[in-house]
Amino acid sequence: MIIVTILGAGNVAQHLYKVFSASVEITVNQWYNRHLEHLQMFKNDVDIFDDISLFKEADIYIIAVSDDAVAEISEQLPFSNKLIVHTSGSVNLHHLDKKNRRGVFYPLQTFSKNAELNFNDVPICIEVEHKADYHVLKDLAIAIGSPYHRVNSPQRAALHLAAVFVNNFTNQLYRVAHEITESEGVDFNILKPLIKETAKKVDTLSPFMAQTGPAKRNDKKTIKKHLATLDKEIHKDIYILLTKAIKETHGI
Amino acid sequence: MIIVTILGAGNVAQHLYKVFSASVEITVNQWYNRHLEHLQMFKNDVDIFDDISLFKEADIYIIAVSDDAVAEISEQLPFSNKLIVHTSGSVNLHHLDKKNRRGVFYPLQTFSKNAELNFNDVPICIEVEHKADYHVLKDLAIAIGSPYHRVNSPQRAALHLAAVFVNNFTNQLYRVAHEITESEGVDFNILKPLIKETAKKVDTLSPFMAQTGPAKRNDKKTIKKHLATLDKEIHKDIYILLTKAIKETHGI
Repeated sequence: MIIVTILGAGNVAQHLYKVFSASVEITVNQWYNRHLEHLQMFKNDVDIFDDISLFKEADIYIIAVSDDAVAEISEQLPFSNKLIVHTSGSVNLHHLDKKNRRGVFYPLQTFSKNAELNFNDVPICIEVEHKADYHVLKDLAIAIGSPYHRVNSPQRAALHLAAVFVNNFTNQLYRVAHEITESEGVDFNILKPLIKETAKKVDTLSPFMAQTGPAKRNDKKTIKKHLATLDKEIHKDIYILLTKAIKETHGI
Repeated sequence: MIIVTILGAGNVAQHLYKVFSASVEITVNQWYNRHLEHLQMFKNDVDIFDDISLFKEADIYIIAVSDDAVAEISEQLPFSNKLIVHTSGSVNLHHLDKKNRRGVFYPLQTFSKNAELNFNDVPICIEVEHKADYHVLKDLAIAIGSPYHRVNSPQRAALHLAAVFVNNFTNQLYRVAHEITESEGVDFNILKPLIKETAKKVDTLSPFMAQTGPAKRNDKKTIKKHLATLDKEIHKDIYILLTKAIKETHGI
């Protein structure tokens, strides 16, 4: 049995609480948050508290709070030499107070408040200060059915940055497409199968091999027509820059 | 029974031939290509030919050739007042020779040579010159199990342009992510569940509502750190421009 204490009440904390509770190999013995009202709905299921002096013994203390709050909360902890981890893609391991054994348990996925998420689809990137702690965190990932990967700090930073491209920036391209279709009164939903197939394609082909389209073909006529069709300056800028990037990548 | 003649031997032509052949409601009576060798492998299954004078009677003649060849091939056809359609997202309906009844049967999807594709996931955008022809093309879409949408020329142009954003440009963002992970020796595969979840998320949330990340939060510290981490100028340019686009979209 792995005994876990959760700190924080946000999206990630709540998704982790849910999946930990569902595992027979994990017990969440306590759940801390500075503002107890955000945990009230769980009070019948778990020991919730807001008094920093009341921490009990656990195998892992998981700090799932906003990036800026990680350092402060880790300093306030009234114990030492325990395994504490944060869940952030971008916070340095050393921002955790060094009185405890430090690690990172970073779930590389997009979490929505209400969306159900299967943790089989949530890779856990594990970083540890002390080698022995890797196995504890690996076992935790296994207990929730997640793939896990040991990474170092620059690798976690690279993954977090790459995630901005494949998640945040990709979503903004969807937004641009939404604006383009809406401007002609045509249903954005028509694009959804293509959106999914594009994501699926990189399962079997590298993005390099999967590339198609006017930029890749150097189809100047279509590129010119597209640029003439775009109304918004920023849409034109995105079209020009990503066309340039595709050409550079493929030596065109 | 819908009698169809296919013209062309590329990806789209081959995928259409396959799905038409599998439908009990469709007969492909002939398959034309200028270079017969590209059709040789189908010669036992269908009447293949390269002599423009040998066309037989069909309900629909589907011209699935490269954009630049559509006009020329439609001019050469030795018959008139039949229903001819092209399959391109960007070629004008009027590039088809006007001696025949003209239309467009545009499958809005990314086709790979070897990948199996379920036509339930291939929306067909239908454009017609004569209203009565819409039903013929609609029935063809139904016979292959595809969703179908009647569009006008500006709407088809908007969909084709939007498809470049959600397919070609999105794939290039995957490529950038691949370069970023590779530069730290970390496995690009770790990002695939996130890539899929990002595509899935717009099923239930608009791209506007689905947006997250440092740009949306105006998290200047993370943005600065990311820009300092990026090695390639063009990666920096993409990061800056898409961050700006997200901020503009969300009024930040």
